[in-house]
This record gives sequence, structure tokens and C-alpha cells, in this order.
Amino acid sequence: MSYVAPVKDMLFVLNELANLAEVNALPGCEDATPETVEAVLEEKAKFTSEVIAPLNWEGDKAPSYWHDGQVTTTKGFKEAFRMFAEAGWQGVQHPQEFGGQGLPKLVATPCLEMLNAANISFALCPLLSDGAIEALLTAGSDEQKAIYLENLISGKWTGTMNLTEPQAGSDLALVRSRAVPQGDGTYKVFGTKIFITYGEHDMAENIIHLVLARTPDAPEGVKGISLFIVPKFLVNADGSLGARNDAHCVSIEHKLGIKASPTAVLQFGDHGGATGYLVGEENRGLEYMFIMMNAARFGVGMQGIGLAERAYQKAVQYARDRVQSRDLAGSAGPVAIIHHPDVRRMLMSMRAQIEASRALAYVAASYSDMAHHHADAEVRKQKQAVYEYLVPIVKGWSTELSQDVTCTGVQVHGGMGFIEETGAAQHYRDAKILTIYEGTTAIQANDLVGRKTARDGGAVALAILAQVRATEEALAQSGDAQLQAIQHQLALGSAALEDVVKYVVANVKSDIKGVFSGSVLYLKLAGIVLGGWQMARAALVAHDKLQSGDADKAFLEAKIVTARFFADHILSAAQGMRSAIVDGSAGVMGLPEEMF
Amino acid sequence: MSYVAPVKDMLFVLNELANLAEVNALPGCEDATPETVEAVLEEKAKFTSEVIAPLNWEGDKAPSYWHDGQVTTTKGFKEAFRMFAEAGWQGVQHPQEFGGQGLPKLVATPCLEMLNAANISFALCPLLSDGAIEALLTAGSDEQKAIYLENLISGKWTGTMNLTEPQAGSDLALVRSRAVPQGDGTYKVFGTKIFITYGEHDMAENIIHLVLARTPDAPEGVKGISLFIVPKFLVNADGSLGARNDAHCVSIEHKLGIKASPTAVLQFGDHGGATGYLVGEENRGLEYMFIMMNAARFGVGMQGIGLAERAYQKAVQYARDRVQSRDLAGSAGPVAIIHHPDVRRMLMSMRAQIEASRALAYVAASYSDMAHHHADAEVRKQKQAVYEYLVPIVKGWSTELSQDVTCTGVQVHGGMGFIEETGAAQHYRDAKILTIYEGTTAIQANDLVGRKTARDGGAVALAILAQVRATEEALAQSGDAQLQAIQHQLALGSAALEDVVKYVVANVKSDIKGVFSGSVLYLKLAGIVLGGWQMARAALVAHDKLQSGDADKAFLEAKIVTARFFADHILSAAQGMRSAIVDGSAGVMGLPEEMF
Repeated sequence: MSYVAPVKDMLFVLNELANLAEVNALPGCEDATPETVEAVLEEKAKFTSEVIAPLNWEGDKAPSYWHDGQVTTTKGFKEAFRMFAEAGWQGVQHPQEFGGQGLPKLVATPCLEMLNAANISFALCPLLSDGAIEALLTAGSDEQKAIYLENLISGKWTGTMNLTEPQAGSDLALVRSRAVPQGDGTYKVFGTKIFITYGEHDMAENIIHLVLARTPDAPEGVKGISLFIVPKFLVNADGSLGARNDAHCVSIEHKLGIKASPTAVLQFGDHGGATGYLVGEENRGLEYMFIMMNAARFGVGMQGIGLAERAYQKAVQYARDRVQSRDLAGSAGPVAIIHHPDVRRMLMSMRAQIEASRALAYVAASYSDMAHHHADAEVRKQKQAVYEYLVPIVKGWSTELSQDVTCTGVQVHGGMGFIEETGAAQHYRDAKILTIYEGTTAIQANDLVGRKTARDGGAVALAILAQVRATEEALAQSGDAQLQAIQHQLALGSAALEDVVKYVVANVKSDIKGVFSGSVLYLKLAGIVLGGWQMARAALVAHDKLQSGDADKAFLEAKIVTARFFADHILSAAQGMRSAIVDGSAGVMGLPEEMF
Repeated sequence: MSYVAPVKDMLFVLNELANLAEVNALPGCEDATPETVEAVLEEKAKFTSEVIAPLNWEGDKAPSYWHDGQVTTTKGFKEAFRMFAEAGWQGVQHPQEFGGQGLPKLVATPCLEMLNAANISFALCPLLSDGAIEALLTAGSDEQKAIYLENLISGKWTGTMNLTEPQAGSDLALVRSRAVPQGDGTYKVFGTKIFITYGEHDMAENIIHLVLARTPDAPEGVKGISLFIVPKFLVNADGSLGARNDAHCVSIEHKLGIKASPTAVLQFGDHGGATGYLVGEENRGLEYMFIMMNAARFGVGMQGIGLAERAYQKAVQYARDRVQSRDLAGSAGPVAIIHHPDVRRMLMSMRAQIEASRALAYVAASYSDMAHHHADAEVRKQKQAVYEYLVPIVKGWSTELSQDVTCTGVQVHGGMGFIEETGAAQHYRDAKILTIYEGTTAIQANDLVGRKTARDGGAVALAILAQVRATEEALAQSGDAQLQAIQHQLALGSAALEDVVKYVVANVKSDIKGVFSGSVLYLKLAGIVLGGWQMARAALVAHDKLQSGDADKAFLEAKIVTARFFADHILSAAQGMRSAIVDGSAGVMGLPEEMF
């Protein structure tokens, strides 16, 4: 088995750290009982291990290919997607009204992790559909919902996001695609979109492109962008497929990784104009697109965590099997390399970062559910603010660490890691896109500094830190040496983060470039401190359960050891990062451009 | 031009930090005058930019391939190697007696950096020849030297190192290849060797394999390994090529990177036995192989630095050209991304790490020259000890940072970085082998902890730290705010390193696994502190020159800014690393094996 979902770890996080019981008690979340959730996870684990994971290496060896406007996906993908759709996996978190299961995001999140761990190239297709579904649910008309949602949620059709153009990557103000009203409520769309994930493929009957374009009199910049539905095949009044639309895939990219996922160049309107339908109001496209992007950003964070878990499992397997050199403490002959301290350190580093980022992401999902479903509007608002603070961290930090983890995964394999057939290198290559698409780490960090910290004067960040302090207090009072060692590093970390939040708030106006030169470091610092906080919470839970005689001793003790490792080896970087952010801008901005 | 050697920076390091004048004054180094060295570097820069660098991407697109026992290298490699050989580049550091130029290692080192920056796959071939030459110079008989050295140094033939077998990677005790004496002074060699760089190719008339194997009565383990010369073609008494030897390439690997460099599986003796000639004495093979390995380890460190420089130049070019988003401080329209603070931070991080690792490596080379050429035996011994302390750091740290730098290089390119045609991804893929071959980072770190620190009670390390303290003192007394900020971080760093050295010495016997669980962190800490020390020295030199009215203001100020960046952003991690090493072993070793 190349991937076995860590269901026990996932359930521990859901139940002990992410308040599944509280979410289950929310209006509309009554189906998410502990028993149902466990059953869903077990089923998804089986499906991803048996059906999806084996296609991962196949997709790397024999990527999707383009011929004459058509894209043929890797052998097995089409059938697997049919099975995925038929089992209802596309609809886990979507409304029952349109055929979904209506489960909370907290339950959909481990499902998402598993699918991405099993096969990130495959998982991208439903991930983009999720984004399209979210956008239509929020901004689509009732008619649009009726036409598109059921087929997207059933997996009969898939969705795409069309933002990027050759001159407009991170900067959507530069979008040039045009949409010309036809007087009948429809538009003709013209333009070139690049980097369109699953922009063309053979796994579904229709593809619903959501496209950013400008109407003729739109203002310049981001305030003049509108969002359009441009289906590959037009949909007749009876729901059947009509004419082929003028949206064509002219090539796909030759990429470092995620090779089975076709990355399309789409040409709209080369043959008279692609028929498009406005979503919501004109010039509000960016706002709607952000709905898709926020869901997608959280999803990309989960991709990082899933991929890291996959790389970890592979490395552990190799470290158990590969026999090389004697044990340092003495042994008759060579031993499995898992006995060697540095191999152990590498595996712990992978494991600890995965557990921390998983816990933080699931906790964020739980906040999202409360923000959507809580009966009290004020509570919803508070929870939403925390969720929005966490999204750039989940996206940015989890993907950055996935590159570290997959790199370490190759390293554990030694020379074999560099041979493609081993498979460790694929994870390393795949991971590199995660810090780039759906907004680079710097874009996430700008969001964290600007919209999520400076705008409210650091209020949300400081409120979260007050919770961290409460955990520190509990650790200190535990009387346990391991927990107190964790407390020591967590306190240093939370102090560092508080300093940085205050520095950001105090200086963002007077020294904007200085503050933004530390933005990525701030994001990473927030990641390790808030991830470290989750590890500390896990250690506390484990400690309390052990005290009360819980029989699952080895599992609970492992939680404490892993939290200890995270504190000593990952969280211990916090003070240095603080100093780089607060004192380090002179070095960043001091060199004149021509001296590079 | 895809690569332009940073000759000015290199000369600054040679002259101001690595004591070229002192080396030039050594017996046997008289030819290495400042003028000659500059001319050599200029010539090498031209050759690598014009001839070698353009073949780099070609090699990735159309790697070397195997057919029926023969390996055909990428189109252009054979001709380029002929030009390389004819220009005398193989012989830069080798004795004039055998046709080399007899220049110091300090001069050969920037040449090596350039060749690897231009094309690491190409550069591997002469790098392995260098190792074979060193081994024969040290351990070969006069007759062997006469037969092989001139043709290796002229580049007519090339050399290989044959250590690894499927069951024997890092652990050479497990080598099984056999060598059976034939009674005429020759041996018949049998066995399978894997991961043999340029083990077969079409760029030279003959390939001289240096092979580790066991004689029939050899003791077990590493003390029973002997070293043999096994030429691809036997050499007749008159120096002409004779019969094809029984050493055949049965396949080459499909790799993540360095694709143009053929990585061979060699089969010795499948047709009666490969004729081999013992080098030196039986059972001393590992000792001789270490001669090759030490040279090769230093060389791999230079590969990391060269590759990082190449990735940096590419990223700077893209950051200047790519226009996206307005300037944070306000601009009419979008600007080149080099104006954005996080792009600036990424470029500074690349630049600073490259400058620091380059300076440390060149300084190490200078120690090696003094160890070889100084008139005073006691000085030679001291210099050799420092050089040997630095080799695992140059290898381990420079290659680890090359992965960070090439990863950042992709990131600067955004989505384009993930497209193979852009070329940034090739550097990222190529870099991954560097922390693995010639001994993984953990193997380097074990060497640093065991042979280089514990064995002498930390004496060499502490002697180097005393020199660091003298630099700190000079920084403190400069009266300059930038230099004092650098001093602050350098003092924290050197204190951290001293603590760790003392911890290693005090605990290596009582808690061997605990100490070795921090070995890689110790290596990295030594890298940033000693690299940061070189940056500080550079800043002091620049400061003094500026004070005395040197006209090269922008260049010298850039040295200070880059040193400041290194101190604030890289060196600032030192205290956290100290804590991970000294307090962190509980988390590394605490998890029972079955819980992974």
C-alpha cells in the first residue's frame, strides 16, 4: 500500500483539538456525529488507498497529453473520477439541496487531505470544481445555480478558475480579456488565459470555466473585472448539452511536477467569441473570485499537508527496510537506518511538521464551520475573523513546510531518492507548485500583514495569542517535565509573535517596505507558533488521558514526544525569526537595484 | 549570456579574505601572482560562459543515453570536453611534472566554481578525474604514475570512483566486490558497482576506474578493502591502448537531475574477470579512497556554490524583467518585481548565502595550500587540521544551502518557475543530488562530530572561534552602526557554536546517540557562524577601504549591506539551533521505532 490515511491521528485532531462535538451541535451540522464522521473517514481512506493512490506514479510516468485541442488524461484517471463522483465524494461539503452531503468543512477537510496525499494531480480536478461550486453558491443567480450546481456537485461536470494571463499573474489589475454584451443578456468573451488547471480533459462531459474579463466601459485595474461562466459546451434549456463553445485549449505545459494534471492555455473567442454569462454584477468579479480563491487557498494548504504525509510514509518505509551501518550504541552487524539518530531526526522533523500543520488546518476548518453555522451573529463574526487570519497561514506555511518535508523525504532515501523510479523525487517535484499557485507565499503574507493584521490593529492576532497563553499556563501547571519543556519554547514563541504583531501594526504606515520585507517571515513565525500551540494542546490532552489511565499509552506518549520535538527543533527558531523581522529590514532594502 | 562568472567578487575573496598574497609567497606557488590569477579567472570565465554554459539546458532536454553497453553523451559535450582538455583546464592544480599548471588549490577553486555554475553535469567528469589523479599522486607507484597521470591530466583519459554497491552505500564495510591475485602482479576483479558517475561515456579515449574490492583473505569490514586501477582499455607497454577490459556498463539511471551526467551500473568480471592493478598496499584501499573523497567532497561543496550562483543570476534577471503590481511606496503603474520587498528579500537571501559559502570555501582552500606548501612542518600541521575541520562544513553546508537557494530561485519566477522551459527548475532538480553523493550531509556531520571535534577535544574548533572573536572585537571598535549590528549577531552565533562544541566534547561518550542526533544541526550552525564570520571580515575590509577613500564605493557598500543581511537573516538562527542541539535530543530519540 503506497498510502494509508492516518485516520486515527485525524480523528484525534478532530475530536480533541478541533471541537468536532461543538461543530456537530451547530444548526445544520447535526449529521456530523462522531460515528458518521469516523465512517466517512474510513470509507474515504479505503477509496484513496485502493483506487487513487496507485495512479499517482502512473500519472508522473505517463502525464496527460494534448493532441489537436483535446487532452487525454493518464490511463485510469477517467475511470477513477467516475468512481469518485459516483461515490458522492465531490459533494461531501456541498448543500444537500443540490445533491451534496452537506457535511461541515471540518469533515470535508480530512477527506481533502486524503485525496491529495493519494494523488495530488488527480485531486486538483475536484478541488477546482469545489471553487466553482462555492462561487456559484455565493454569487450565482437562481437560474445559474439550477443549471450548473447539481452536475458540478455530482461530478458529471467539472469547474475551472480562469484568472492568469501572460502579463497578469499575481497582479490581476493587468487582466485584459474582454467581454462584450450581446444585448440578450449574454456576452462574447475574448482573450488568452494561461495556467488553467484541468482547463481541458476527458474526465467529465462538460467543463464550466469561470473567467475574469473586462466589459467595454469597465474602469481600469481590479475594480473593472467581472466574472463570467463560459461552459465548454453550452447547456440547452432541457439541461442537455448544446453547441461547442468558442473556448479552446491550444496547448498544455511541460512542468516540474503534478504532470498528470493538465495545465492549459485556453483561447477564448478566436472563432467569433465565446458565449459567457455574467455572474452577479459587473465589476465585482474579483470579489467573487476571492470566494473561490479563499476556498482554494485553504485547499492548497491541505495539499501541502497531504503530500507531506505521503512523503513521510514513504520515508519511514525505506528507513525500516534499508540496512546500512552498525548502531552507534553498538550492534553485531548493520542495522535498519531508522536506528541512526540523524535518520530519526529527519523522520521526526517530517512527522512533527505534518502533525502541527494538520492540527492548525483542522482547527481553522472548525472556525469556518462556526462562522457559517453558529446561531449567534456576533460569534459568527468573531469566528470568521479568526478563520480569515488563519487561511494565509494554512496556505503559506503548510506549503512551505511541504517542500522541506518532501526534500527531507528524498534525503532519507540517500542515492535511491535521486532515482525517479523510487518515487520520492516525484513528491519533491510536485510540492514546488504549492507555494506558487493560488497566490505565492508572498501574496499570502501580504494578505496576513495588510488585511489580517494591520487593518484591525492586530486585534485578532492578539486575541489568538491570549489563548496561546492560557495553554502555556496549563503546561506550566502540569508538573510534567516534558510539558514544561514545551511550555518554555511556546512562551518564547508567543512572545516573539506578539512582538512582531505589534511591530507590524506600529510601523506599517511609516515604513511600509520595511514591514513587508518581513511579511513571509511573519507568516512562517505565525505558522510555527500557532502550529506549536496545537502540538502543545495535543500534548496536554495526551497527558491528561494518561493521568486518568487511558489504555492507549503508546499513541498518547507519541503525541507528547512529537510535541516536544516540535518545540525544541521547530518552534525554537522563533526568536531568531523575530529578530530578522524586527531588525532585518535594513539588509533587505539596502542594496541598490543595479547592484544585484 | 546564461551565466557570467562573478570574477570581481571572486577576486575580492581571493585577495581580501583568502590571503592569495600569502599563498603566492609559499614555496611552489610562485606562479600564482595576482596578475596571473586574474588572467586565469578571466579566461576561465570566458570559456565557461561561451562554451560550457549553453550546453546546460541541452543536457537536461537530451540527456546522455545508453545503448548496447555504450553511452552517448549530450550533443556538444564531447567537443566541449576536447576544448576543455586542450586549453589545459584539467591540469590547473596538478603538478607540472605530469603536464599540469601546478597552480594552488586556491586558484583552482574559483575555476571549479565557474565550471560547475556553467554546467554541473559536464563538470562532474573532470571532477572525478581530479579525484583519480589525487589518489594516484598520493598512493600510486612510480610506474602507475608514469602510465596514467599524463593522460588523465591532459584530459585524454578520464577517471572514476567505484565505491557503491547495491547493498553498500554509506556503509563501505559491506563492499563485496572481489579481486583475485593472478600471480603476475595483476588481479582479476569481479563485482557490481552502482552510481558510477561517468562510468561510461564517449568523451575520452580511455576511462580509468578506481575500484574498491576485497582480496581473498582480506579481513571483514572496512579494514579489508583494497583499491585497484581497472582501465576500460588495458594500456600497452608503449602507452598505446590494448584490449578492452572486462568492465561493462549495463545501464544508466533515470534521475531527478544532472541528467546529462551518465550514472552507470558497472559490471566487473562477467566475462572471466576484469584486469586490475593494486594501488599501494592491500587492505589500505579505504584510506586511499578518502584522498579522492576529500578532494571530491570539497569539490561537491563548490558545485553547490556554483549552482546557487547560477540560480541567483537567473532569478535576478527575471526579477528585473517581470513587471507586476505597483510599488508599495506608490507608483503610477506596475513595476519590475525586483522593487517588491519580498522579492528583494529572496534575492538577498540567495546572494548572502552564496557570498558566505564562497568565502568560507576559498578560505578553506587557502588553508589547504598552506598545509601542503608551507616551509614549517608545524604550521603545515595546524593548517591541515583547520582545513580538515572545514571540509565537511564546505561540503555539507554549501550543498544544503544550494537547495534552499535554487528553491528560492524557482519561487522568484512564480508560475513560470514551474515550467521546465524556463530553466529555473533544472537547477532545483540538479541541486538535490549534492547533499547525497560523496557522503550525505549526515555523513559529513558524523565526520565533523567524530573525527573533527570529539577526537581533539574541540581544540581546532575553539582555536577558530578565537579568531572569530578577534573579528568581533574589530567590528565593535569600528564605531560604525552597520558593523556593530553585524557584531551583535556574530557574537550570539559564536557563543552558540562554542556551547555546542563543548556540549559535543562533554557528551559524546556518555550520550552518543543524543550528540549525533544534533550532528547535522551542528554542521549547519558551524556553517552559518563561520560563513557569517567571513561576511563580517568582508564588511570590515569594505569599511576600511571606504574610510581610506577607495573609489569603488557601490561595490564596497554592497559588501556591507550583504553582510548585514546575512547577520540579521541567516546568522540570527544560531541561538535557536544551539537550543535544538543542546536540549533537543529527547524529542529525536524518544519515539519507539514501531510508532513511526
